[in-house]
Amino acid sequence: MSYCLGELAERIGAGLLGNPNIVIDRVASLEAAGPSAVTFLSNRRYRPYLGSTRAGAVILAPEFADACPVPALLLDNPYLGYARAATLLSPPVEATPGVAPSALVDSGATVAPDASIASHCVIEAGASVGAGTSLGAGSFLGRDSSIGPHGRIAARVVICRGVHIGARAIIHPGVVVGADGFGIANDNGIWVKIPQFGGVRIGDDVEIGANTTIDRGALEDTVVGDGVKLDNLIQIGHNVHIGSHTAIAACTAIGGSARIGSRCTIQGAVSIAGHLEIADDVHLTATSAVSNTIREAGVYSSGMPIQENRIWRRNIARLRQLDDMARRLRAIERKIDRRA
Amino acid sequence: MSYCLGELAERIGAGLLGNPNIVIDRVASLEAAGPSAVTFLSNRRYRPYLGSTRAGAVILAPEFADACPVPALLLDNPYLGYARAATLLSPPVEATPGVAPSALVDSGATVAPDASIASHCVIEAGASVGAGTSLGAGSFLGRDSSIGPHGRIAARVVICRGVHIGARAIIHPGVVVGADGFGIANDNGIWVKIPQFGGVRIGDDVEIGANTTIDRGALEDTVVGDGVKLDNLIQIGHNVHIGSHTAIAACTAIGGSARIGSRCTIQGAVSIAGHLEIADDVHLTATSAVSNTIREAGVYSSGMPIQENRIWRRNIARLRQLDDMARRLRAIERKIDRRA
Amino acid sequence: MSYCLGELAERIGAGLLGNPNIVIDRVASLEAAGPSAVTFLSNRRYRPYLGSTRAGAVILAPEFADACPVPALLLDNPYLGYARAATLLSPPVEATPGVAPSALVDSGATVAPDASIASHCVIEAGASVGAGTSLGAGSFLGRDSSIGPHGRIAARVVICRGVHIGARAIIHPGVVVGADGFGIANDNGIWVKIPQFGGVRIGDDVEIGANTTIDRGALEDTVVGDGVKLDNLIQIGHNVHIGSHTAIAACTAIGGSARIGSRCTIQGAVSIAGHLEIADDVHLTATSAVSNTIREAGVYSSGMPIQENRIWRRNIARLRQLDDMARRLRAIERKIDRRA
Repeated sequence: MSYCLGELAERIGAGLLGNPNIVIDRVASLEAAGPSAVTFLSNRRYRPYLGSTRAGAVILAPEFADACPVPALLLDNPYLGYARAATLLSPPVEATPGVAPSALVDSGATVAPDASIASHCVIEAGASVGAGTSLGAGSFLGRDSSIGPHGRIAARVVICRGVHIGARAIIHPGVVVGADGFGIANDNGIWVKIPQFGGVRIGDDVEIGANTTIDRGALEDTVVGDGVKLDNLIQIGHNVHIGSHTAIAACTAIGGSARIGSRCTIQGAVSIAGHLEIADDVHLTATSAVSNTIREAGVYSSGMPIQENRIWRRNIARLRQLDDMARRLRAIERKIDRRA
Repeated sequence: MSYCLGELAERIGAGLLGNPNIVIDRVASLEAAGPSAVTFLSNRRYRPYLGSTRAGAVILAPEFADACPVPALLLDNPYLGYARAATLLSPPVEATPGVAPSALVDSGATVAPDASIASHCVIEAGASVGAGTSLGAGSFLGRDSSIGPHGRIAARVVICRGVHIGARAIIHPGVVVGADGFGIANDNGIWVKIPQFGGVRIGDDVEIGANTTIDRGALEDTVVGDGVKLDNLIQIGHNVHIGSHTAIAACTAIGGSARIGSRCTIQGAVSIAGHLEIADDVHLTATSAVSNTIREAGVYSSGMPIQENRIWRRNIARLRQLDDMARRLRAIERKIDRRA
Repeated sequence: MSYCLGELAERIGAGLLGNPNIVIDRVASLEAAGPSAVTFLSNRRYRPYLGSTRAGAVILAPEFADACPVPALLLDNPYLGYARAATLLSPPVEATPGVAPSALVDSGATVAPDASIASHCVIEAGASVGAGTSLGAGSFLGRDSSIGPHGRIAARVVICRGVHIGARAIIHPGVVVGADGFGIANDNGIWVKIPQFGGVRIGDDVEIGANTTIDRGALEDTVVGDGVKLDNLIQIGHNVHIGSHTAIAACTAIGGSARIGSRCTIQGAVSIAGHLEIADDVHLTATSAVSNTIREAGVYSSGMPIQENRIWRRNIARLRQLDDMARRLRAIERKIDRRA
């Protein structure tokens, strides 16, 4: 794909400083960009590279326009402008419409004529694949499950039975949606499995990272809202609800029946216990451990940053004495108060 | 499946209050249940929904019998009763006996006549699949490995060579059993791989969640006891032993050669170092980090619950001073004692 | 494979005490080893088993030679010696050269004549597989990707487009290399996907554990250096650089654009934030959370070891008061100083 700079500016909603006829056909970093590439400046740590860039144009905030040695595309949110430009300049996704000879599509399944079903896929009875959606090699779509239009399902994805996925889904390799939730009851020391009857409902415009797992509900459905973005190796337990436009980074674990609000951002390696609620617009920093409901929007954190090992050893030993220290401190305060 | 309420009561071992001839054909939540559904009350947070339920019957503890507006099935452990009722009312698992045309079963493998081997499976020489066991699409069973009778192996499961799995296994998609353990020796800064000769032995009635990994042993076998239940995205290192009827929640990591006792419960995102022992009947709460042997049964915890970010920042800075604070506190106590 | 003890000693660079003509054909543990097995003693906890071993020979440090009841192979680093002996005594890897009938190799791909492509593999146009490399059943090699010579790629591995892997790679089942990084920009509460144009470059002699994920770069490549060893269920974000000969244990998460040095060791369940640097020769103990750049080689730690639950509850409550405690301690010190 290629665009004149003028058209690109218009499409991403940017003001243009410079020649609108320059042809742009790619994106690149400030350092690597050549004259047919558009680049961007959004993180101040890359400011030093601006002066020497050889890019065709730079997307940046108006405050840096004067310092830009090449044509500039002016936007208050240059990172968003870059996202839009990069999307426009992406090569079209290559997926041949039709069903590969080695794929097995049950006669009771419905596959849109322009969908692309790659080699060794299996699509069971009652399942449906929407218009323009592609399934990568070896993916599996179980009985009575559906994927909406214009989705991109990568290789080796497993969608179990009774899972419904909206439009424009992007699902990366190794994802498993709809495996049984972890439901067990104890019978005098022996665990008895609880059948998992619910399904999974995933909204529109959801992206799911590699090897992430989303369990089916026990009785009701597990629900992932519109526009949710999930990174790799995330666990979503059964009956979890995730509100719209929440983004979750890698290696986060969410326990069963937790309800996460909308527009939350959850950084990496966070742990959220089951059966609690997190309000809308909550932001959790990396490695936070949530064990109780959060009722107020805001930024929350837990976890301990690293220290040199020998110092950490000393401090950590004191952690076990912390309640004792607090009591001794109070006792001293009382003594001093009495004497005062 | 459907049952008269009288028969259902007898099968789950419950006392019945109400008409034994009501026909029950499904399970549902207290709120959603209609007149042909059985539901349950085990968590007190759902007590408010009891009075208005329209269920055919409710499984509950005797203390709530008077408050139940519909027939009641009385059990001291209603959740267990629900597990049993839900199992009875589950639709039968659909798996066509025989080997799918696109599956590849080596002539030196043994597959029970009523086993079900789905499309694109690969079963290598010397492997065996027990009576009534099903392998989902694209699963792999390596050389000389075995799966016992009445197992349900989902799609895209990888069982490497030399792995032995007992009866009634339930293995979810993406599981990898028997990949090499992480064995490396350092040769002046260069890592040398240590071949992994052991296998994996998994007992009867074990369930393994999606994308969980269990490594083969270095010299001896990795061992998972009878009735163990593993959630998703768990890592079991090489030579680990897990005692019978232990349950482990998602995203827990267990280091090589750790020995976990029987009847333990390990919540989510726990980390257990290698080469240590955990006694029987140990319970670890979520995000616990175990770095030493636990000799006594009991409940253990670590990790730090979240705080508002600005408060956490202040407290966390003090953590680095904790040893210093403890010393200063002791010094003050000495001063005060001397003056007293 | 079998060796005379004399030849084995020479090949692993060990001094020999005992009969060089004994035939060794396997490795085993100190306790299990019979007369044709070589074993080793490197961890002092196994010292009690030395006196009663029935092994053909023991690899050990010279200080234990006198206590060894059977022939001894003397090395300062017996674990390394064992690694070498075990490698020599490993059965050859079985992989039939050629392309299995059910594998699909695009006519525009290049596969070395002695490479082994197992059943249901898919190799896309422009991809190449080096001499002697094997791909396990159902693996996927995307467009324009390459795997060097003498690699062992297990079953159900997904290598996306534009990924380059060096010589002698060992990649375990379920690994995903080259899925999109987690790049999103916010547009008034809606997340906009940022296309990921970079690739992944992986050096020689790299091992990648089961279900680990390595994302492709946003603009530049994600880079994994020579000799890096990765355990299971690790997440490597986009644009990460990992220096040569660094080893990383299971369930570690590395955020995007982090740069990890060479010869680092990172234990299990570590979390490393994005956009930071870790120097060469840094060692992180299990569950460490790194949120800032580490400039100096050394050992670093964070995380809290377990305590009995009732004690932990008391101590953890005090953690929230830690800043307050520190201020009160300082106030007392001032009062006492004034009075002194």
